[in-house]
Amino acid sequence: MNISIVGASGYSGLELIRILHNHPYVTIASIHNYSNVGMKINQLFPHLTDIYEATLEEVIPEQIMAQSDCVFFATPSGVSSLAAIPFIKAGFPVIDLSGDFRLDAESYSKWYSKTPADAVYLEKMEYGLAEFRQNVEAKWIANPGCYATSVLLPLLPIVSEQLASDTFIIDAKSGVSGAGKVPNSANHFVNAHDNLALYKINAHQHIPEIERYLGEKSPKFQFLTSLLPLTRGIMSTLYLPLTKAGARRSIELLEETYATKTFVRIQPDGQLPTIKQVVGSNFCDIGLTYNEKTGILTIVSVLDNLVKGAAGQAVQNLNLMFGMDESTGLLQSPIFP
Amino acid sequence: MNISIVGASGYSGLELIRILHNHPYVTIASIHNYSNVGMKINQLFPHLTDIYEATLEEVIPEQIMAQSDCVFFATPSGVSSLAAIPFIKAGFPVIDLSGDFRLDAESYSKWYSKTPADAVYLEKMEYGLAEFRQNVEAKWIANPGCYATSVLLPLLPIVSEQLASDTFIIDAKSGVSGAGKVPNSANHFVNAHDNLALYKINAHQHIPEIERYLGEKSPKFQFLTSLLPLTRGIMSTLYLPLTKAGARRSIELLEETYATKTFVRIQPDGQLPTIKQVVGSNFCDIGLTYNEKTGILTIVSVLDNLVKGAAGQAVQNLNLMFGMDESTGLLQSPIFP
Amino acid sequence: MNISIVGASGYSGLELIRILHNHPYVTIASIHNYSNVGMKINQLFPHLTDIYEATLEEVIPEQIMAQSDCVFFATPSGVSSLAAIPFIKAGFPVIDLSGDFRLDAESYSKWYSKTPADAVYLEKMEYGLAEFRQNVEAKWIANPGCYATSVLLPLLPIVSEQLASDTFIIDAKSGVSGAGKVPNSANHFVNAHDNLALYKINAHQHIPEIERYLGEKSPKFQFLTSLLPLTRGIMSTLYLPLTKAGARRSIELLEETYATKTFVRIQPDGQLPTIKQVVGSNFCDIGLTYNEKTGILTIVSVLDNLVKGAAGQAVQNLNLMFGMDESTGLLQSPIFP
Amino acid sequence: MNISIVGASGYSGLELIRILHNHPYVTIASIHNYSNVGMKINQLFPHLTDIYEATLEEVIPEQIMAQSDCVFFATPSGVSSLAAIPFIKAGFPVIDLSGDFRLDAESYSKWYSKTPADAVYLEKMEYGLAEFRQNVEAKWIANPGCYATSVLLPLLPIVSEQLASDTFIIDAKSGVSGAGKVPNSANHFVNAHDNLALYKINAHQHIPEIERYLGEKSPKFQFLTSLLPLTRGIMSTLYLPLTKAGARRSIELLEETYATKTFVRIQPDGQLPTIKQVVGSNFCDIGLTYNEKTGILTIVSVLDNLVKGAAGQAVQNLNLMFGMDESTGLLQSPIFP
Repeated sequence: MNISIVGASGYSGLELIRILHNHPYVTIASIHNYSNVGMKINQLFPHLTDIYEATLEEVIPEQIMAQSDCVFFATPSGVSSLAAIPFIKAGFPVIDLSGDFRLDAESYSKWYSKTPADAVYLEKMEYGLAEFRQNVEAKWIANPGCYATSVLLPLLPIVSEQLASDTFIIDAKSGVSGAGKVPNSANHFVNAHDNLALYKINAHQHIPEIERYLGEKSPKFQFLTSLLPLTRGIMSTLYLPLTKAGARRSIELLEETYATKTFVRIQPDGQLPTIKQVVGSNFCDIGLTYNEKTGILTIVSVLDNLVKGAAGQAVQNLNLMFGMDESTGLLQSPIFP
Repeated sequence: MNISIVGASGYSGLELIRILHNHPYVTIASIHNYSNVGMKINQLFPHLTDIYEATLEEVIPEQIMAQSDCVFFATPSGVSSLAAIPFIKAGFPVIDLSGDFRLDAESYSKWYSKTPADAVYLEKMEYGLAEFRQNVEAKWIANPGCYATSVLLPLLPIVSEQLASDTFIIDAKSGVSGAGKVPNSANHFVNAHDNLALYKINAHQHIPEIERYLGEKSPKFQFLTSLLPLTRGIMSTLYLPLTKAGARRSIELLEETYATKTFVRIQPDGQLPTIKQVVGSNFCDIGLTYNEKTGILTIVSVLDNLVKGAAGQAVQNLNLMFGMDESTGLLQSPIFP
Repeated sequence: MNISIVGASGYSGLELIRILHNHPYVTIASIHNYSNVGMKINQLFPHLTDIYEATLEEVIPEQIMAQSDCVFFATPSGVSSLAAIPFIKAGFPVIDLSGDFRLDAESYSKWYSKTPADAVYLEKMEYGLAEFRQNVEAKWIANPGCYATSVLLPLLPIVSEQLASDTFIIDAKSGVSGAGKVPNSANHFVNAHDNLALYKINAHQHIPEIERYLGEKSPKFQFLTSLLPLTRGIMSTLYLPLTKAGARRSIELLEETYATKTFVRIQPDGQLPTIKQVVGSNFCDIGLTYNEKTGILTIVSVLDNLVKGAAGQAVQNLNLMFGMDESTGLLQSPIFP
Repeated sequence: MNISIVGASGYSGLELIRILHNHPYVTIASIHNYSNVGMKINQLFPHLTDIYEATLEEVIPEQIMAQSDCVFFATPSGVSSLAAIPFIKAGFPVIDLSGDFRLDAESYSKWYSKTPADAVYLEKMEYGLAEFRQNVEAKWIANPGCYATSVLLPLLPIVSEQLASDTFIIDAKSGVSGAGKVPNSANHFVNAHDNLALYKINAHQHIPEIERYLGEKSPKFQFLTSLLPLTRGIMSTLYLPLTKAGARRSIELLEETYATKTFVRIQPDGQLPTIKQVVGSNFCDIGLTYNEKTGILTIVSVLDNLVKGAAGQAVQNLNLMFGMDESTGLLQSPIFP
């Protein structure tokens, strides 16, 4: 099958190219951009020489639909809310990696400070948290945010049994690639290196995304994010007040839920994962430890923000959409060391 | 005045040399070690050439007491519990940077798994959290741990007014210099770089130190520590459940408490500090932000683990002990960039 | 086909596992070690959970030969000189990633300060610089050193036409994974991070390896190595005094030589490669720029020391040995960003 | 005495503030900028809170001359060539940290692609390589470039005795702070981290600066620069073809020349310096090693590009200009670890 990528020169777009290069059934038919049109992608990114050397094309929906079976939007938020509409109207499959179709219109306006897509289209979108897909035949996928994925995978089973009732804490940290390719003060090497800095204090746009998909039973949570001096990787540390029985049940629940899931690895009890053990792979690794003295269950969830947190999960959704095994083309080992 | 350093070739010992090199009233009369005796310190650490080139000597208490006015122990835990005793017995001033004199005997045995100093000597020691020194004339100082300093400075004023009653969370992160100079798997570049890893899960020896000095009113707290891919710096993020009024009072309290303190800088409301803004200096910077929706006051405290978290605070204690202004020799700017 | 790995828990061994996990025709039948025997590899390296979970076994040649078609030695130098002999004697294929079979006995003694393998076996070994293999049917391969590969690939074509006659300079830099897994002072995070340090001054064991394989026409060269604060990657910068015509011919020669080679990418004239553009891949990227004013041709060669500089090239040699396309299982994209 | 700084919010300007904060005889009377006028410097750079909190002012020469005794220009190239003129005309002391007054007009136009200062003013400027100052009473100083300093200090004594006759090689590497504060693609964390990249191939503006100050006897040299993944520090590695006698004389010459110089430390023979041993200090450390086999003398020179390579040397020049000891306020220890 053929796919096209819009926004191929951003970090998520490049990661789609890297992953799909090894997918046995998928060909990248074309890549599209709003800048650098006419340039070969490997002129901009020499690592792709001899790997994938297509020319960046304009975004012309008819042309894309004529030659491909699905389009990925790896564009910043605010683009696909408009640009994806012609595809949806035409009944053509879309996987959107941005935040444009993850929230309802009101929330989107508030947290993104941008004009939301028309509600008709927002409703058509299925949230693409791959391990919890409702309708695997959905043709329009809002691929989840990187932080949201790292938080929802450990939390959803626990919250759906209403084990976590009190306010809890999420202390999340991400590498710099999560902040995008456009140079600014925060991603200047001198500011990010040898440093740790909190950002978007109580204002991160993944807060409403997590709330929404935790559902009506969502307890309150405090969510803060820090920028780590590394390129790839997220660690979300969750602190849940729980009774001993509640903690034990939570651990069981996660083990049960993910026993048959390829890309979520629950660590042995008390062993907490490190960021490095997932980099370059589609795994989300989760470790748990209960402290009887404080009554806190600590859950540590790590993933590669560009793979399971973006392009990898998008390919997982593509696989599901087209009836392939969800792990097709995604079973590469993390890069260690 | 003259001082001597035992354990001069470790990171805290080297930092004492760096700081005291610019102290107007202090001369380093001698440096002592349990290894590399007879070598010049600048053969081991060429950055000290022309700065300080003394030879490492054996630890002979009589000799040290004959030539100096105070001795610093910058040794690993388990050394000064024995080696400092002759000095204390002789009434000679000691500032110990290790954990050997911070806990009572029982706690020390439990958390350090080592033989504690005799209780007679433990009781003589004053805990050297400089901003909260009880008896500035004390001659024997247990210099606080780096994490403990970063946590106690923001917490003590709040806890002493009993504002924090519930269990709260401390998510603390430290650079690799905190883990010491002896090469091991955790501080191997390949394991620490591009990584984030939790360690000493519910078992960090600064937990009982924080509990002890918060005093009888100490609420329960969950304390976890991570290793950051950088050399110097600690960030401790505290999440306290508080009412709006409690949060407002806490902020006021910190501003009042530290208005006249040189080395604790309270950031403007809502502005959180980064690690880099204190590196190389004796400052502890504290920022606060209250989230009305979750009822959580987030406090972020940063310091350089080798300065305010070790050698800098030790010099601050030396200054107090000998009647100098506490900031003498310590007013250097952080290194930025 | 089946292979076995001796020394599976070192960085090169782990990289063999990572690469072979995606090889369509190769199964890792067993992994062997001189330590941690009886442990599952993913207990030591949790990134391998669900990827490859075999137990580390003792090194018993008969057993390995019974179940596999080829054995890799990913052991430190000084091991395979003895341990590989039973396999060679039995006519069983061996690919050795260490330096034990790359030099003649005299050079090996001098540069490695270890006892060389018996000359009978040294002679049987083929040097495995894949793009210049003499006898693709050779069953015993001395896989080249990482620096040597980065230097020989650009130099061999130029030296074989005797274009470089004068003494030239090689300024080579490597990431820390090249220094191995055993913790020591040089690979302590605090010493390697934020630093650049030269090591093995005029004494690097790849000097005689490069000299030997440049052949009788080898000109003199000055070779120095530095440790870079990153995990993977080598950059070798070569400065060759050449006439304008000689430089032009050198550039042509490299372009011609590698036009049909999958894993050596010659950059467009004047464009120099960066380390990041090859990390995670088996590519060696080479850029050239001639300075008419100084008469110096600068050649910059980059590769991932664990892939093209070790495990990747070893798999390339395996492919050649067993009649597969040399790129089988190796055509993954570099990881960028 | 009082000084003023123009361009106080750039890296060199901030470093002037850091260094002068500890200078016993100098007060920073005012700071000036072309942007952010009216803001307090510590609002932009919170590390300066309680250290130095002045407001950024417009650049009004009369006002600066009325209140100060000397003005530093820590502006990008292209600014002081015009902005410094009123001061020079008025006979007021100027220390310029940019490249605007280091070359003759023709060279400047060619290498900087900017309009040079009027030749009248170029001639008035003294090149401020502190250890080789010609006229210590000069009031107008062109402070040297960071790379140029690291290269000229080891080379000048050797070249002035005409020991180096052939073309030689300089392989120089710098941390990212050398590339300035304005965010761009090269200093984006994701591009600089875990990478090594050559830049300004045969086009670095310090080439003509080095040539000029080596003087008429300047041999040809090939000069290339790379960007290191660290913030502060330069290492310049020089490869000089020399006879054994020439090498021995060169080593002697450097030892003699710098025996009485505070800020140049010649390492013991064969011991090469690392970047980390000078960071935060005004030292330039130089190591040498001769390889008899290749006939190459390798010289490794390291310094902190913001201190000895910029602000520190500028203060050294200030000290000389006003008759103080050149080391006043500059004798701080490097920061290690």
